[in-house]
Amino acid sequence: MSDTGNTPRDLRLLEKTVGYYFHDRALLQTALTHSSYTNELRSKGIDSRCNERLEFLGDSVLSVIVSRFLFQEYASRQEGDLTKIRAAVVCEKALAKYAAKISLGEYLLLGHGEDKNDGRHRPSITADAFEALLGAFYLDSGYDCDKIENFLLPFVKEEIADMGEDASFVDYKTALQQIVQQANGERLRYVLVGESGPDHDKSFQVEARLNSNVIGRGTGNTKRAAEQNAAREALALFGASR
Amino acid sequence: MSDTGNTPRDLRLLEKTVGYYFHDRALLQTALTHSSYTNELRSKGIDSRCNERLEFLGDSVLSVIVSRFLFQEYASRQEGDLTKIRAAVVCEKALAKYAAKISLGEYLLLGHGEDKNDGRHRPSITADAFEALLGAFYLDSGYDCDKIENFLLPFVKEEIADMGEDASFVDYKTALQQIVQQANGERLRYVLVGESGPDHDKSFQVEARLNSNVIGRGTGNTKRAAEQNAAREALALFGASR
Repeated sequence: MSDTGNTPRDLRLLEKTVGYYFHDRALLQTALTHSSYTNELRSKGIDSRCNERLEFLGDSVLSVIVSRFLFQEYASRQEGDLTKIRAAVVCEKALAKYAAKISLGEYLLLGHGEDKNDGRHRPSITADAFEALLGAFYLDSGYDCDKIENFLLPFVKEEIADMGEDASFVDYKTALQQIVQQANGERLRYVLVGESGPDHDKSFQVEARLNSNVIGRGTGNTKRAAEQNAAREALALFGASR
Repeated sequence: MSDTGNTPRDLRLLEKTVGYYFHDRALLQTALTHSSYTNELRSKGIDSRCNERLEFLGDSVLSVIVSRFLFQEYASRQEGDLTKIRAAVVCEKALAKYAAKISLGEYLLLGHGEDKNDGRHRPSITADAFEALLGAFYLDSGYDCDKIENFLLPFVKEEIADMGEDASFVDYKTALQQIVQQANGERLRYVLVGESGPDHDKSFQVEARLNSNVIGRGTGNTKRAAEQNAAREALALFGASR
């Protein structure tokens, strides 16, 4: 076994990592076959399948599994937020990260040119192969999204956690606003009550006030971050934090 | 029951049309609730759910069902063709057609303004509601894509048939080329052998030739259409037609 050259790793290792053993290992092999490899074979008169069709299928499998997870996990979020998070966790950059975590590049069949040009670690190639892997998994398991979920969601959850502010911050204020709207005539405001530290390392203190009552306090390096933290505290008060 | 005003049709009629009876009919009702309706209620201090989150989910459900159908049905087509067909059958225009076929607009809860402005028949509203219906179906059925498929695929197949040239024509030549490539040294050409009719109603006759053998003949209003028909005939010869 070698990490370079066209001697990819044993597929059994990959199956172990994925936690799923293929009935039709040829399908798994196709998912790992880049078009540069089949093009090279074709020029020698040998016809074989590359992973592009499986990538087409896997793209949708990825989307539906991520969507149903987000739909259930973020029950208080609006469609716009869900769409943003979905886009972030299924983009090429994110998929290439997931692929790297299972060393997917090392299992690929690549043409010699791609292999020499570090194709095994190129995000566009490994991200596509990750989708193709999901497509093959879907077919081989008889459309078993639950099995795929067990493999996929840990990566997605980690990616959402890594997004940190971007993922969660939009939400606390929106979620709080939704709760407040249920009670008519309530007025929610965010009031800057303090500011400290030098210019390059400011800290803001904000209060979330419902009518004249302070329902949450937050601190942050920006006013927006402080407001979001105040909203998060207020949500906890309403028993609505996640 | 009325087709206009906010007295939508009985949901049991819709369930009959869809061929699926919801365990949780509130979920179906949410799928049919446009944001203009919930916004109107909110202004009166009443909070309820619109169909946007279900639309988010349904969008992916639609995609995965269409993708697995295309993947299997068009086994000889390349990823690029599949992507084009998928885009055409899940676009707003197509979804609005499917929605119209089940009179989905008549079941919607709309705000008064939208209702007066013919919102029940606006493609952007009915297409979104169709996706939301799929999302609700998916949740209520415990993620049963097979059941949804039975409802959805007849629309998709009809849409593909309606696409006619656009959908199928790209393919015959590509499919034939793939078969021919398997045999090394073969040369496939399309030769214009005839042209007839007035300028506004031309007819072209084309032969598909493999080396010097005629393997298919086709006629069409454009050279391209004639070539595709010739390729289709040749595929039949190879036993590869669909």
